[in-house]
Amino acid sequence: MIENRIEKLRERFTELGCDGVVIFNIFNNADLRYFTGADIEGVLVVDREDTNVLVSSLYYQKAMDSLGGNVVLSKDLDDVVSFLKKRGVVKLGVDFARSTHRQVGSLSGFELVDFSNQTLELRMIKERDEINQIKRAAYIARNAFIKVYPMLKPGITEKELADELSYQIRKHGGEKEAFQTIVASGTNAAYPHHVPTDKPIEDGEFVVIDFGAVVNGYNSDMTYTFLMGERIDEKKELFNAVFYAQLFATEMIAPNRTRASEVYNRAKSELAKRGGVDKYFIHGLGHGVGLEVHEFPYLNAENSIVLKPNMVFTIEPGIYIPGKLGIRLEHMVLVKENDVEVIAFTPFVEAM
Amino acid sequence: MIENRIEKLRERFTELGCDGVVIFNIFNNADLRYFTGADIEGVLVVDREDTNVLVSSLYYQKAMDSLGGNVVLSKDLDDVVSFLKKRGVVKLGVDFARSTHRQVGSLSGFELVDFSNQTLELRMIKERDEINQIKRAAYIARNAFIKVYPMLKPGITEKELADELSYQIRKHGGEKEAFQTIVASGTNAAYPHHVPTDKPIEDGEFVVIDFGAVVNGYNSDMTYTFLMGERIDEKKELFNAVFYAQLFATEMIAPNRTRASEVYNRAKSELAKRGGVDKYFIHGLGHGVGLEVHEFPYLNAENSIVLKPNMVFTIEPGIYIPGKLGIRLEHMVLVKENDVEVIAFTPFVEAM
Repeated sequence: MIENRIEKLRERFTELGCDGVVIFNIFNNADLRYFTGADIEGVLVVDREDTNVLVSSLYYQKAMDSLGGNVVLSKDLDDVVSFLKKRGVVKLGVDFARSTHRQVGSLSGFELVDFSNQTLELRMIKERDEINQIKRAAYIARNAFIKVYPMLKPGITEKELADELSYQIRKHGGEKEAFQTIVASGTNAAYPHHVPTDKPIEDGEFVVIDFGAVVNGYNSDMTYTFLMGERIDEKKELFNAVFYAQLFATEMIAPNRTRASEVYNRAKSELAKRGGVDKYFIHGLGHGVGLEVHEFPYLNAENSIVLKPNMVFTIEPGIYIPGKLGIRLEHMVLVKENDVEVIAFTPFVEAM
Repeated sequence: MIENRIEKLRERFTELGCDGVVIFNIFNNADLRYFTGADIEGVLVVDREDTNVLVSSLYYQKAMDSLGGNVVLSKDLDDVVSFLKKRGVVKLGVDFARSTHRQVGSLSGFELVDFSNQTLELRMIKERDEINQIKRAAYIARNAFIKVYPMLKPGITEKELADELSYQIRKHGGEKEAFQTIVASGTNAAYPHHVPTDKPIEDGEFVVIDFGAVVNGYNSDMTYTFLMGERIDEKKELFNAVFYAQLFATEMIAPNRTRASEVYNRAKSELAKRGGVDKYFIHGLGHGVGLEVHEFPYLNAENSIVLKPNMVFTIEPGIYIPGKLGIRLEHMVLVKENDVEVIAFTPFVEAM
């Protein structure tokens, strides 16, 4: 158990008038890992005095060996409810956005309080060791990329390149890739979340490569775009629109002052100024990175959160012209006391 | 859109008195893929007359290009609710176990009916083409294993072997591995869901290798256990307990007659007979495999479902002795009209 984090969780649920919180972790085990330090699956219950993990028989031994105790063998939702009652919890926090309707529905006999965003907010400000893990994940991904870079030549298929990159991410020390590596070329690059195909990469195409590594549960996430086989001149304006959108958005961040939406707007307006290509910018500008690939803070038009030291997030403007091409540049930044540090630089565009 | 499947879905929600169903796909896009044929993320709405996919701007172009139409750009849950109302849906099916509490909570103004299990039940009986995809996924995984098998020698680490196997799964035509490949040796094998470490594999250890491939969204799932560097004699009884539990459980299945729980009980009693090692059998006997790695039917003590032709599921008894060892053997079976076909055989135990 990681007591300083659990203490902050306790402050939060106490503020909301709760005497306990149950965390179901339906999408992944990020919260569980954050508060316990163990890579297990189960249900986390934190009350005023104690922290327990409820696990199935499949994870019982691993949880016991990882945590030494405070592990409760639990078969189903009824067991979770009984345990919460045994602990004397009456007013219970539960994340409505990250629990199933059935799970929340099973919590009868409690006064429920929506605990959504609370753990994501805690995890948004990274500790020193977390930052180091994210940096390691970034360096591993970048080194893996450098290894496969010589293979980026006309003729290799999207999937071949993606498979080699995923493999090298592991060979360089990543547990695995942070998400299915994207290699999208030519018209395929117009899909932000393209799945690599057997299409060969060809001269004259933009190739978008979006990839990351996992290290001790922490992720990295970066995107390079290359133009194949020809000088950039012809398509320079499109590329530069994205390049400068990223650059100026990154440079404008003043810790403790700039809001997420302002950074988004800066990128958007830069794209607008450069040929009106902001109409092809169809997603947010960035997202936090940590135990999840996508977490708080989100950089979009609606989010007015002030960017603070020890936040880590991506800045990734992109333009997607259906049937034609796509360009995306993504790096991660760490907000420091007085400025931001770019964790993984985007290399220049021209490929072989 | 895959109309024959949507028609069956319509029959189901009509039977439940609904005039529409909304499918949120919070864990993965398996349902969406099943009913539309497209590999996209979004919300599926099927009503009495029509089928539509509601997607964010991130997936709009891909959805349009895949489906040609019936794609609705949608920003948030409010848009989903408006669309359902526009379609005239009043009594609405929604899967309480596979939707978040927030999603279901947002559906105000409808009469809600729990639609859980319905799509899983439809997907449980595979069509011919689905079976072929699963078989391909199994063959790819097996061929990949054959390729890395010579590397299974004392000294290689769990992670090195797992990384090579994952890589070969992709090189042999898999989109990716079906789940993070497990290589668990010695005492680590006592954790059913071990994450491969830098621990070298050593003589005298059991090594559990659990792996699968994805092909067109369909998964395979198989587990081999090898004893390293020594003759099986000494530990033969433990291995044989698992081996015969799997064999007899597989052989007893009579299509349209045998219940899932009976197969589980057969494996369990075989383990009991052989030294009482059933106390180390801490999970279910198997699970369906298809667009999800784990889906219906589940083979456990509680599930009384009758096993029917064109179901595909694993049979995977295992024993886990904490601090000592683990053994698991897993193959997939396809239920046919008169018997079962083993899709991916487990090879014999003795390694180099």
